[in-house]
Amino acid sequence: MNGADALIETLLANEVTACFANPGTSEMQFVSALDRQPAMRPVLCLFEGVATGAADGFGRIAERPACTLLHLGPGYGNGLANLHNARRAFTPIVNVIGDHATYHRQYDAPLNSDIPTLASPNSIWLKSADSPDAVAGVAAEAVAASYGPPGGPVSLILPADSAWLETKSEPVRAQKPTRAEPAGDKVDAVARALREAKKPVFLIGGQACLAPGMAAAGRLAAAGYRVLADTFVARQPRGAGHFQPGRMQYFGEAALADLEGVDLMVFVGTVTPVAFFAYPGRPSVLVPEGCQTTELASRSEDAVAAMNALADALGAPRQGPVQPLVKPDAAPAGALTPQSAGIAIARHLPEGAIICDDSVTSGGGVAVPCAKAAPHEVLALTGGAIGQAIPLSIGAAVAAPDRKVLSLNGDGAAMYTVQGLWTIARENLDVTVVVFANHVYRILNIELMRTGAGTEAGPAASKLLDLGDPKIDWVSMAKGMGVPAVRCETAEDFEKVFAGAMAQRGPMFIEAAIG
Amino acid sequence: MNGADALIETLLANEVTACFANPGTSEMQFVSALDRQPAMRPVLCLFEGVATGAADGFGRIAERPACTLLHLGPGYGNGLANLHNARRAFTPIVNVIGDHATYHRQYDAPLNSDIPTLASPNSIWLKSADSPDAVAGVAAEAVAASYGPPGGPVSLILPADSAWLETKSEPVRAQKPTRAEPAGDKVDAVARALREAKKPVFLIGGQACLAPGMAAAGRLAAAGYRVLADTFVARQPRGAGHFQPGRMQYFGEAALADLEGVDLMVFVGTVTPVAFFAYPGRPSVLVPEGCQTTELASRSEDAVAAMNALADALGAPRQGPVQPLVKPDAAPAGALTPQSAGIAIARHLPEGAIICDDSVTSGGGVAVPCAKAAPHEVLALTGGAIGQAIPLSIGAAVAAPDRKVLSLNGDGAAMYTVQGLWTIARENLDVTVVVFANHVYRILNIELMRTGAGTEAGPAASKLLDLGDPKIDWVSMAKGMGVPAVRCETAEDFEKVFAGAMAQRGPMFIEAAIG
Repeated sequence: MNGADALIETLLANEVTACFANPGTSEMQFVSALDRQPAMRPVLCLFEGVATGAADGFGRIAERPACTLLHLGPGYGNGLANLHNARRAFTPIVNVIGDHATYHRQYDAPLNSDIPTLASPNSIWLKSADSPDAVAGVAAEAVAASYGPPGGPVSLILPADSAWLETKSEPVRAQKPTRAEPAGDKVDAVARALREAKKPVFLIGGQACLAPGMAAAGRLAAAGYRVLADTFVARQPRGAGHFQPGRMQYFGEAALADLEGVDLMVFVGTVTPVAFFAYPGRPSVLVPEGCQTTELASRSEDAVAAMNALADALGAPRQGPVQPLVKPDAAPAGALTPQSAGIAIARHLPEGAIICDDSVTSGGGVAVPCAKAAPHEVLALTGGAIGQAIPLSIGAAVAAPDRKVLSLNGDGAAMYTVQGLWTIARENLDVTVVVFANHVYRILNIELMRTGAGTEAGPAASKLLDLGDPKIDWVSMAKGMGVPAVRCETAEDFEKVFAGAMAQRGPMFIEAAIG
Repeated sequence: MNGADALIETLLANEVTACFANPGTSEMQFVSALDRQPAMRPVLCLFEGVATGAADGFGRIAERPACTLLHLGPGYGNGLANLHNARRAFTPIVNVIGDHATYHRQYDAPLNSDIPTLASPNSIWLKSADSPDAVAGVAAEAVAASYGPPGGPVSLILPADSAWLETKSEPVRAQKPTRAEPAGDKVDAVARALREAKKPVFLIGGQACLAPGMAAAGRLAAAGYRVLADTFVARQPRGAGHFQPGRMQYFGEAALADLEGVDLMVFVGTVTPVAFFAYPGRPSVLVPEGCQTTELASRSEDAVAAMNALADALGAPRQGPVQPLVKPDAAPAGALTPQSAGIAIARHLPEGAIICDDSVTSGGGVAVPCAKAAPHEVLALTGGAIGQAIPLSIGAAVAAPDRKVLSLNGDGAAMYTVQGLWTIARENLDVTVVVFANHVYRILNIELMRTGAGTEAGPAASKLLDLGDPKIDWVSMAKGMGVPAVRCETAEDFEKVFAGAMAQRGPMFIEAAIG
């Protein structure tokens, strides 16, 4: 057994069963060892940003890490943006970064780079396994570290000689860390503060937004309190049968208007909300002036237990309000817009579907009607680095092969990791990819004004905001990578094609021509 | 005038005239300022890896930096791999990395990240312009630093408020650093060592491989010395009228066999050659046992002056041998292979063409016949991070609009930054992109054996090496991004299509179906 075998055996012993990979020469031992370890599922991604985003999707749904296999510093770099998103989603991921043999590093060969420095900002743990005997122990440590709490990507650097040299080590099982229950006095303090507050609001995020947390949050709502969720949540149930919290508004001024008069904000599994970007003369911190803030549960504590304890202390009902099932009766007609597409989606989305959302300015049109659709879950863009929803859908579909996965993308965003379509075809995943093609970075036209940079883009600025010259033919692109694809230009088209996609299994691509 | 204006004015004052960009909200002031600064050419890239690779291509050809415009840490991360290549090519590039407003950084908003840490491994200089008045001075410093010598990517972090706040600063002109001539005693020492050596070899790289360096190296060859160039050179002339050095072999054992008996290696503009990767039981350093090594010029010194001084000291002729023009008489026929494609390329490549090469295992077939083709230049993959040749061709074509640019790609490599095809169409660049589609990571099948990982890939390993299921339809992909595209399945096809592409101007894509 060599170090690569030891690594995969220990990963498998700790329930790491999927590997999203784009290997190179320094990873050949790992690749070869896969033939001896059939329990590990290798998934080839044609760009590392697809691999890391897929691992994020897998981790969000499976609640355990997948591993990636990345080729030295540049391979890690290609996956960096989606690891930034994963870090902000607190998703457990074990990145296996192949490196030169330990003795070869000193020679600064062309692919040499400072991997620990590159990887440190987006790794909650990082270690290099510098001998074959060290591999199993370091791998177990990596898996444990990835769980946090609150979890995140870890980086295990695997030098080529640690992989190819022999070892007699046994697989090492890691202790999975658990979340601490918040101390009782925290619950008491919040209960007291609530009694004194005139207009309190709960802001929930992270673990508090998973299904058990949403049920607990519903109890607080039933007790008469307003509950908001973070603007972008890693994983959140939605639709019939689920409590539906409000949402922190994206734009700061809208958020503060929504919070007007609020005198207490209670954070549960999240922290003080801040503006996504700074704007001249506008506030960074989205807490009304004079409003008190307090924490019921930190990101690493058990927010569900804390909310239930508080609900008990407040004498809240055992169950909170849940959404009714109200599918739009009428099929949408006329122009295809995010809104009319959203109606079709709400009508046909099957129970248990997973929506991976990177639809930017088109997202709102879908969210509204889906609030009363069949129960489903939404994985949002936590870190703001576009190019997430195609990769995320790959990982979600690998983690949950029996659930329909819907990937919603702005066209600018989809282009970032478009290579992921090939993996969807290759693995025959039950993923429907929708690209809202408006052929412009629409959000940036809005932001140009908001940042005070101008009221309208001139000719040079427009060249950096417009995607319409030439117009991307998304159907050609998707078919070129082996995914069946249709362009829809009217709401009627979309209704029909989307209904068909939901009724069948396997890869499907829909260009929603809204531009 | 705001900080963004100050930045662009100073960049223009220092001959930075092209900006390869994918902006976001924090860069809107820069985008807007472009409307007031028409001398700066904005080029939109639909992924940052395209932008950084394009800046590399521009810098290699223009011998002055372009700037990039990147959106915070994740935007930089997406461009990281091609900056790794640029660092290894010593290409001057000024990366402008937008960041949150200085006062907003503390709040750790979703897109916040540790940019200095992320960027440091691939930046030869890095500074944040933390006030609008600082921008012009920092920008001038950035341009100067990018020249080295030997040059490389620099990172200028531009917080949003430094861009949007007013400033009265004037554009700052930077002093362009020059290369020092090596001390005379270095030349004398090498001349003495050569007299004592039985079998000396020169190894040249970097600046020594540009046209003036190749002429000087030719004089050393004329004096009877063997001259080799580094395996991967940032920019090197080739074909009729140019001196053609040998090439360090890629595989270590081949390199050492080629160097057998060599007792002196003289490095000019490069350093001790090492193996690209380590392999079990094979050497890392590619210098024969007992061979002496010495340096005529470091990477930062003037290698051309040094070689000419040495040639004078050795009494070498004023001119060395140059390649004759020998185009293959007969059009290739039969199966399409890298070799038959190479014959067609050598027949039709126009004088002054620029070849951007990321063709991996298909490259050798082209290099051999092109050694006596019309004079052209080759930009090679210096850092080993695949996905370079489409982006590189964009930058080369922007820098040299009157020269034909040929981008040669392996299919695995082309997929990495395939989004660049859109920019080629958008800017109507005179670029012909060839993808050698063998539908496999061929190099990795070879490396699997060489690393001792196995003689043949089993079913799991094959899943990570094979690209053929599904086969990518490259013509659909290219057309989907607006580039005219043709698939060639025979040598006759390729000859005809390639000749046509060379005879016209504008974007063209050829899938060379060799798999």
